[in-house]
Amino acid sequence: MRIGVLGTGTVGQTVALALVRAGHEVRMGARQAGNERAVGWAEEAGAAGSEGTFADATGFGELVVNCTAGTGSLEALAAAGEERLAGKTLIDVANPLDFSTGELRLFACNDDSLGERIQAAFPRARVIKALNTVNAAVMVDPASVPGDHVVFVCGDDDGAKAEATGLLGDLGWPAARVVDLGDITAARGTEMYLPLWLRMMQTFGSATFNIAVTRG
Amino acid sequence: MRIGVLGTGTVGQTVALALVRAGHEVRMGARQAGNERAVGWAEEAGAAGSEGTFADATGFGELVVNCTAGTGSLEALAAAGEERLAGKTLIDVANPLDFSTGELRLFACNDDSLGERIQAAFPRARVIKALNTVNAAVMVDPASVPGDHVVFVCGDDDGAKAEATGLLGDLGWPAARVVDLGDITAARGTEMYLPLWLRMMQTFGSATFNIAVTRG
Repeated sequence: MRIGVLGTGTVGQTVALALVRAGHEVRMGARQAGNERAVGWAEEAGAAGSEGTFADATGFGELVVNCTAGTGSLEALAAAGEERLAGKTLIDVANPLDFSTGELRLFACNDDSLGERIQAAFPRARVIKALNTVNAAVMVDPASVPGDHVVFVCGDDDGAKAEATGLLGDLGWPAARVVDLGDITAARGTEMYLPLWLRMMQTFGSATFNIAVTRG
Repeated sequence: MRIGVLGTGTVGQTVALALVRAGHEVRMGARQAGNERAVGWAEEAGAAGSEGTFADATGFGELVVNCTAGTGSLEALAAAGEERLAGKTLIDVANPLDFSTGELRLFACNDDSLGERIQAAFPRARVIKALNTVNAAVMVDPASVPGDHVVFVCGDDDGAKAEATGLLGDLGWPAARVVDLGDITAARGTEMYLPLWLRMMQTFGSATFNIAVTRG
């Protein structure tokens, strides 16, 4: 399918390339067309990859993936345009991370989340929070970590959730390892996991890890 | 060893009984001596179990476990008395859960945590945050959940951490499944995991689960 990937950072580059390799046509969106990183990415991606503005990528995509930094997500989506997002599945991979004080703070937290803010700001988009609990390399190569570790999805639209789960399958996540936590308010849970993730990353000295859920 | 367990709820009762069964002498502390639940517990526990006030239990214990509700922990520890806590390992199992609005909110969160508040309020106690990421039954019977699932410890005092890890061993947690996240500020991570834990519990319809960490 045609997919718009918003964001030119490591997450955007990694996810966008994996989607091309899975057989999709992907347009990477940035604040301005001709973004150096986006152009470099499109060259690496080949014929199925292209680049443009946030609006270009969103208009191109039948489905959109938000890989912008959490601090810039709402602005990027506003530039993408509410009309262009209407009716589309919007997979939100971003986290509300704020390191401006020198240590990790979530700018949305507790009784709020970035996923909910995005859904509230763009009510006609079908927002699915996903993949935000693992680092970019693990997102697209779950086999790099052993065991039946999981990712989480949540969102208000079951059709969008099924579509997102299918796309996760393209990235190597079998449906049995995609835990559906219900509506978009569960984004609080997966985003508030980040401080634990970060401490584990610091403890292990590596971001190549994930959690499995074991049940009695 | 002699252990004071503060709190007469499910967590206190479960942890205190498991510690007695592991060979320790345990005094359960409540706001007032003669608390009905504490007396019932002490009868079940037998000769190695006793009950009294928070101060009684803390004075009795060479080590203290805070199993009070998070909303009442600082008050309970104040009643226990700073002098009685001085120099002792204080394992903090509580979570800063606030359901007063009808949904889960953490009353300490993001750039703060209950574990840190306790350490700051009782600087001479050696606070170790532990076991707060699993439900009471799993705390004392990790084998009820399959696989190499983990618990986390954090705190500023390495000796106290070793002591706490030993006590976790008594409860069935091998040292290899106790993840040391560093100083007490890591309590932010393990406490902020609770919203994800709660959503998983609701999704699974069971609290008998835990997370394993798999590393590439």
